Amino acid sequence: MITPVYPAGRPAPEGHYAPAVVHGGLVHVSGTLPESPGHEAANAPFEAQMNTLLKHCDDVLRAAGSSPEKVISLTLYLTNLETWDAANRALAQFFGAHRPARSVICVPEIRQGYAVQAMLIAAVQPFLLD
Amino acid sequence: MITPVYPAGRPAPEGHYAPAVVHGGLVHVSGTLPESPGHEAANAPFEAQMNTLLKHCDDVLRAAGSSPEKVISLTLYLTNLETWDAANRALAQFFGAHRPARSVICVPEIRQGYAVQAMLIAAVQPFLLD
Amino acid sequence: MITPVYPAGRPAPEGHYAPAVVHGGLVHVSGTLPESPGHEAANAPFEAQMNTLLKHCDDVLRAAGSSPEKVISLTLYLTNLETWDAANRALAQFFGAHRPARSVICVPEIRQGYAVQAMLIAAVQPFLLD
Repeated sequence: MITPVYPAGRPAPEGHYAPAVVHGGLVHVSGTLPESPGHEAANAPFEAQMNTLLKHCDDVLRAAGSSPEKVISLTLYLTNLETWDAANRALAQFFGAHRPARSVICVPEIRQGYAVQAMLIAAVQPFLLD
Repeated sequence: MITPVYPAGRPAPEGHYAPAVVHGGLVHVSGTLPESPGHEAANAPFEAQMNTLLKHCDDVLRAAGSSPEKVISLTLYLTNLETWDAANRALAQFFGAHRPARSVICVPEIRQGYAVQAMLIAAVQPFLLD
Repeated sequence: MITPVYPAGRPAPEGHYAPAVVHGGLVHVSGTLPESPGHEAANAPFEAQMNTLLKHCDDVLRAAGSSPEKVISLTLYLTNLETWDAANRALAQFFGAHRPARSVICVPEIRQGYAVQAMLIAAVQPFLLD
């Protein structure tokens, strides 16, 4: 079974994908942007974009029956590596004692002008064969 | 067991990798280009590149015992985010009612001058421990 | 269970992540740089960077109970696609008869000025439910 996940209260994706998909005890979270109504976040300071992004990640993880401390790997895309420290601080606060595998990748551009995008794989309890 | 997958009728990869690998009920599809004999596709319109790419993805999925509706996550690399709409339309047609997790990532360049590259993870039925 | 992996003799990561994480019979290796004490490697020739990088990958795989021939998928990030041939040669030597799924992705920049970064998913024997 491949189960799409749509967090409550979030607009449906513009594109042909699900915000996340659960399969085989894992949730695969789609590339997530720090979107907010009216797209104001693209002009927001980096820290605000990180906070919005991580709120979205938390929402989709919980809708899938997961949570930040069950994140296995995170790929973070940044348009500017000078934001690495601020991104790292926000992630440290988000994950607390938990440390996932992580890759930080610089990209020339992110959709809608955002400065950051995240992709996650996390465990969904219990680990079941489906 | 880690089982490499080589779709029939496709030239062997130039590099040291398998087109896809099956393990633990999943097929991991390598970064796939819209290659065609003589490499003409690099000068082809974006829509033609998407069609060639998705044909290759379909071939490798089926060679692994999977299919488009079993795709769990797709990472799509584009050299130009202005092709997002055309890519999304082609993916909607390819996947039909199914919606995988998806990340679209902008990159400065793709090998051989292509405009698009795809990486996939899909389920192989049945979900077996190997 | 999500188990972080810290290879012996390697400095702790600067950021809030684990060098690798084991879950569900797989090890997810974080984005790995060809770091060496004093960061001299950023000015090293590409081949030397590849060798340092692959040594780090080998160390973290073995610390997780895995090894190169159990690598399922590799994502290699390059700042210059002209290094593709040299990267491919180093990977062929590293993997020997084994061929993983692989994606090579061009990026505008890698942290600390390196020319290459790798992310891996590999099997950990035996394949256990945890």
